[in-house]
Amino acid sequence: MRIALLGGTGDIGEGLALRLARDTTHEVVVGSRTAEKAASAVEEYADRLGDDLTAELSSAENDDAAVDADVVAVCVPPYHVSDTVESVAGRVDDDAVLVSPAVGISRDDEGFHYNRPPHGSVAEVAAEAAPDAVPVVGAFQNLAAGALADLEHDLGFDVIVTGDDADAKATVTALVEEIDGLRALDGGALANSAEVEAMTPLLINLAVENDGLHDLGVSFQ
Amino acid sequence: MRIALLGGTGDIGEGLALRLARDTTHEVVVGSRTAEKAASAVEEYADRLGDDLTAELSSAENDDAAVDADVVAVCVPPYHVSDTVESVAGRVDDDAVLVSPAVGISRDDEGFHYNRPPHGSVAEVAAEAAPDAVPVVGAFQNLAAGALADLEHDLGFDVIVTGDDADAKATVTALVEEIDGLRALDGGALANSAEVEAMTPLLINLAVENDGLHDLGVSFQ
Repeated sequence: MRIALLGGTGDIGEGLALRLARDTTHEVVVGSRTAEKAASAVEEYADRLGDDLTAELSSAENDDAAVDADVVAVCVPPYHVSDTVESVAGRVDDDAVLVSPAVGISRDDEGFHYNRPPHGSVAEVAAEAAPDAVPVVGAFQNLAAGALADLEHDLGFDVIVTGDDADAKATVTALVEEIDGLRALDGGALANSAEVEAMTPLLINLAVENDGLHDLGVSFQ
Repeated sequence: MRIALLGGTGDIGEGLALRLARDTTHEVVVGSRTAEKAASAVEEYADRLGDDLTAELSSAENDDAAVDADVVAVCVPPYHVSDTVESVAGRVDDDAVLVSPAVGISRDDEGFHYNRPPHGSVAEVAAEAAPDAVPVVGAFQNLAAGALADLEHDLGFDVIVTGDDADAKATVTALVEEIDGLRALDGGALANSAEVEAMTPLLINLAVENDGLHDLGVSFQ
């Protein structure tokens, strides 16, 4: 399977690239706005992984990364999601799956808050910008980038998968569970994504307010 | 300590009454709109607890339950929170703490969604209705009523405590941790309550969509 990480040099992109490169044998393409930045990130990731690199790791400009990809994860800041999806829309296969891990977060003196987009959630913003034939799945929003990028960190976290296309959700669910220490849970329809995204500022508030809780994740029982 | 559970005959009130009555030695007053309904609930709770009843369990009309209480938990549906708090405002001690466990939830064909009140959260609705001197603390929103009321169910869940008054939060934090299987985490300011409340419809969606996850709760690590 070919997995494109658009914005694969950012926080969540870095963590996903490292974990997928270590825990799977897929083709993982790290995308960035420039080919140079993507290539430099891949060189660094490969260095850090050393002999643990099992995937086929490569780099490309975001637009090129999306070509022929089975899964395209839009790992860019929430305010760039719409533009990024639109810019690759002509290059994404109709049978590809778009994955939305981004969350809109605002901060004030009292803490971090969910900044809900007018479309309901970032995942729905991505769906609005995506070609009609390409399903969007929400996933990975609640993973602390620091934990994900620290390969010594045993995760033990749940990832909630939302979407309206059962096949697309099954693809993403299987991919989540290929990463050591992640369990995928079905969150239902894409319209249920806002409550998943809203948990990310909550996790940051908990990390700020509680000694000993850093790079925390969530599990349900 | 005297703990009043306004709406203590409802789902979350029932669970809190049973757990507090079993796991603490406080004075627990189950309030309801009528004294008869409250008395009948207390009789049933005492029956179910049998020899496990360690608290001093009593019943009263909501207004009377709040008198002299150290902690007043507003266990009523979200659309009754404002009226209920206003109706007891003249009877609550200035050094009491109001606790807000309620969550606004809507449902459509796609799932359960957080129905955010105009004030930002139900906890902030309660604060708006409360006397200025009486601090409001958000807590207990993410506990499945079914798990809480089933005394055979080992909880193992986290409870997030939000509020702007450190002493009030400390009181509620200590109370949470008196209940077996609950850990209190500091969620920061009362303004951070919306993200806590939003997790409740998410928990319901996960229970609906995933086999084997019933009456689930959350833990952070």
